[in-house]
Amino acid sequence: MNNSPDNGNAFTNSEKIYIKGRDNVRVPARRIHLDNGEPPVYVYDTSGPQGHDVREGLPPLRRDWIDARGGVSEVMPSYSPENPGAPEIPEGLKRETVLRGSDNVTQMHYARGGIVTPEMEFIAIRENVEPEFVRSEVASGRAIIPANINHPESEPMVIGRNFLVKINANIGNSVVTSSIEEEVEKLHWAVKWGADTAMDLSTGTDIHETREWIIRNSPVPIGTVPIYQALEKVGGVAEDLNFDVFMETLVEQAEQGVDYFTIHAGVLLRYIPLTAQRVTGIVSRGGSIMAKWCLAHHKENFLYTHFRDICELMKRYDISFSLGDGLRPGAIADANDAPQFAELETQGELTGIAWEYDVQVMNEGPGHIPMHLIKENVDKQMDLCNEAPFYTLGPLTTDIAPGYDHITSAIGAAMIGWYGTAMLCYVTPKEHLGLPNRQDVKDGVIAYKIAAHAADLAKGHPGAQAWDDAISKARFEFRWEDQFNLALDPETARKFHDETLPAAGAKVAHFCSMCGPQFCSMKITQDVREYAAQKGLDVDDALDAGMEEKAEEFRRKGTEIYQEA
Amino acid sequence: MNNSPDNGNAFTNSEKIYIKGRDNVRVPARRIHLDNGEPPVYVYDTSGPQGHDVREGLPPLRRDWIDARGGVSEVMPSYSPENPGAPEIPEGLKRETVLRGSDNVTQMHYARGGIVTPEMEFIAIRENVEPEFVRSEVASGRAIIPANINHPESEPMVIGRNFLVKINANIGNSVVTSSIEEEVEKLHWAVKWGADTAMDLSTGTDIHETREWIIRNSPVPIGTVPIYQALEKVGGVAEDLNFDVFMETLVEQAEQGVDYFTIHAGVLLRYIPLTAQRVTGIVSRGGSIMAKWCLAHHKENFLYTHFRDICELMKRYDISFSLGDGLRPGAIADANDAPQFAELETQGELTGIAWEYDVQVMNEGPGHIPMHLIKENVDKQMDLCNEAPFYTLGPLTTDIAPGYDHITSAIGAAMIGWYGTAMLCYVTPKEHLGLPNRQDVKDGVIAYKIAAHAADLAKGHPGAQAWDDAISKARFEFRWEDQFNLALDPETARKFHDETLPAAGAKVAHFCSMCGPQFCSMKITQDVREYAAQKGLDVDDALDAGMEEKAEEFRRKGTEIYQEA
Repeated sequence: MNNSPDNGNAFTNSEKIYIKGRDNVRVPARRIHLDNGEPPVYVYDTSGPQGHDVREGLPPLRRDWIDARGGVSEVMPSYSPENPGAPEIPEGLKRETVLRGSDNVTQMHYARGGIVTPEMEFIAIRENVEPEFVRSEVASGRAIIPANINHPESEPMVIGRNFLVKINANIGNSVVTSSIEEEVEKLHWAVKWGADTAMDLSTGTDIHETREWIIRNSPVPIGTVPIYQALEKVGGVAEDLNFDVFMETLVEQAEQGVDYFTIHAGVLLRYIPLTAQRVTGIVSRGGSIMAKWCLAHHKENFLYTHFRDICELMKRYDISFSLGDGLRPGAIADANDAPQFAELETQGELTGIAWEYDVQVMNEGPGHIPMHLIKENVDKQMDLCNEAPFYTLGPLTTDIAPGYDHITSAIGAAMIGWYGTAMLCYVTPKEHLGLPNRQDVKDGVIAYKIAAHAADLAKGHPGAQAWDDAISKARFEFRWEDQFNLALDPETARKFHDETLPAAGAKVAHFCSMCGPQFCSMKITQDVREYAAQKGLDVDDALDAGMEEKAEEFRRKGTEIYQEA
Repeated sequence: MNNSPDNGNAFTNSEKIYIKGRDNVRVPARRIHLDNGEPPVYVYDTSGPQGHDVREGLPPLRRDWIDARGGVSEVMPSYSPENPGAPEIPEGLKRETVLRGSDNVTQMHYARGGIVTPEMEFIAIRENVEPEFVRSEVASGRAIIPANINHPESEPMVIGRNFLVKINANIGNSVVTSSIEEEVEKLHWAVKWGADTAMDLSTGTDIHETREWIIRNSPVPIGTVPIYQALEKVGGVAEDLNFDVFMETLVEQAEQGVDYFTIHAGVLLRYIPLTAQRVTGIVSRGGSIMAKWCLAHHKENFLYTHFRDICELMKRYDISFSLGDGLRPGAIADANDAPQFAELETQGELTGIAWEYDVQVMNEGPGHIPMHLIKENVDKQMDLCNEAPFYTLGPLTTDIAPGYDHITSAIGAAMIGWYGTAMLCYVTPKEHLGLPNRQDVKDGVIAYKIAAHAADLAKGHPGAQAWDDAISKARFEFRWEDQFNLALDPETARKFHDETLPAAGAKVAHFCSMCGPQFCSMKITQDVREYAAQKGLDVDDALDAGMEEKAEEFRRKGTEIYQEA
């Protein structure tokens, strides 16, 4: 059985290669071969090792590095699922023991100690920068490497504004629909199209088993919102939550290998009344659960009061914080309001505390924000959270287009990425309406790959434009197959072309169905250049005074070229 | 027979209404009825009169206003098609005579003379501003009202940065595919979803007949690129073009009722060599045709040298210039380069000349531009063209996503709209690949309605946010039907919701398939508010010191509310 990710013929003329570095790191990339003697184009590849049985999981790429650093011990898992109705975890995915750090095993801890880890080596090659630069960015807190020691299958990646902008895809079943197999398939589908991390937002009954399948098969870091599972454990009654059940959940997930936790520790009791006048109140699930708990008990959020205990735990597994924005705006009307920025200030305070423990942190951000208010979000986050990476959901730039929120939000995501946001959480067309299916996941990922790449271009990220230049050159030279192969989604590009000009001959035609042969501007421009080249002229020459004769020649020759088309 | 636009049940619970104003103007709007005693929402409506036979055309709404102003005479059309193979123009669309102004009949001419025309009255109601404001914007050149006296069927609309951002949809057959019926259907489809103008870019053999069908059935202004037809008239040989055949084409189209002409008069001979180093050369069809002509003849562009003659013609029909950007960049690599801005400078010069004749002008803009270079385009255009309306194609913010260029460009379009662009020319998913079909046209229009509305919000356009607030309130209150009915595309929103929760009961459920009932943040927030309301508290009270008892009460009550769900 093999239903692991298979890029198959989606990326035609592409080849997965590995670039070797120090410490035996082998860094994946996709090489796109081109026609006409053009040099190949290399692009970042998130799809992970191919051809593995999902019931065996991926190979533990990082395990040797983790062991070599020491400071970890193998222990029995503290949690074993007792869920009679739940699907079995296949033998191949089961682990007798899990790892626990005896003290601090975070990438930030090593970075601050001056150590360049193999993960950093790996990332340096992947991002085309120096390993020392990766180390210094992680040491400063400006970048994180989500890499739980219990998720050795993951290929190291970095989230920080001085690197390529990353995207996250949310997967996860809900009580209403979806199955484990579908979720693993969704993960592989998401990373195939370019998701850099995935969040498992499952809320159903098989939450532990689903996560185990996902992590063992994930080449990208996995994030979760642990309060969801904690709530399941207390029967769905927010008021019955307590810190013990939350910590038990954290340990369970830490041992499974979750790489980052969304924790809504910034939703303080005193901020909740600030949301009373909003159009859409509290729209974060985690935020509303904590708000309900705080109000019911008239006590401060236990995630805030126990934050240092959480840090102590997370440093032993190298789990990164994704400090939740439980009070993010859920409507244009609520953008950049008092509760949103009050919570951001607390996120800043908590970021500083986590850094005392060398625990890596990113900060979650909105939401629904009109374009003119987007930049303020990044400026404030950078200021209040001391440049910790920002990780935003969109933002959606208008509320009026349910069914198209991958577009309303890709606009905001591209802009906020340009302004300095390090990772963009995708939004699918089903946002506000239902659970995304396979096509929705793809549509969301592609929209966000566009946003992230547009941001890389606008930031002037070294090398980002080479991809655009290669496809534009192919387009101009009518290398149709190269244009398809260089596309973010070659299948769709080819299919769209073939709808109107399906013949194989059309793939080498010097025009397309949009304008037809006579009106093709690119063809006309090429005719002009070709004429100049044949005559040993440059175009300037043709314009020189006294060149009337050559103009006459061009007129004749140009006409001939035209008629041959 | 009746295949005129029929909004049918696409816009459920909506009603087309007419708002009466002075001069007997009746201005269309769409009223969206809501449940729960919520006030209806009124939105701009481009769909035009419904229920007309396309073989009879739309009623000549503006004809009386045009006659009343005088200065026009009925004349025999100077051109009658002699195209034996072409489809007949139906009797109901044929006109014995056409109108010609004896002198200047432009809206700008009236505006500068202090006259508020019925068209301006109409627009004032449509845009919710004062008629005098419309007049002054048109007089200054900051806004245009494309309104050929031979297209009385059009409902007046304005293009200018102090009004709602508009969008254009390109239609038009090509030599490779498409038919007249399909093009009329595409027009009606485009205006149904919100296109404010349409450009007929037909290049096939039935170009005259296609245009006649389209104009007689179009409630929105129609633009064309006359050089396409002129080129057909000289057998497709660019070198054989001359000013006479161009002027003959302009007269033919002026008499048919084209509202704005794209004219590439800024492609000067000396700019052409500047494109030699580009990745994609000249990507505008009109631009490349003129470049070829200029080089072949070693002469200055005849559209530039005869520009005043063109103005003299256009003022007699009130056709607006859309000064083409023949040298716009077709790749990220070519953005904001020397030839692009050289042409923009000439566009500015020509804008000034057109204004000497009181001829309305907008300026076309790019193209392919990375985000960080977008604003410079608007700033330079405003400066060089004295604030004439800017009309841009996208811009696309990356080249790497053929098949998704409605998204790559919606990002740029939203931003450039925010910065002050008055009209956004849509890009469909088929851009660079093929001719858009019905679904592509819809996808392009919706993506651009999103971009335009996001820009209106960011500009703080009065009233723009009311639509967002209404849909967000409906969302928060679980008024699912209202949320669908308020969507840009109710059909798709409803379909997406029904994919996972099709039951009618789910339409009133206080949750959706995304989170299920226990995790619905909106529901939890509502529970909190409801509890407070029932107890006569506001949320602040619940937080006061000494309210432990009430917290206990809330805990019990909250639990009950939960279990009822």
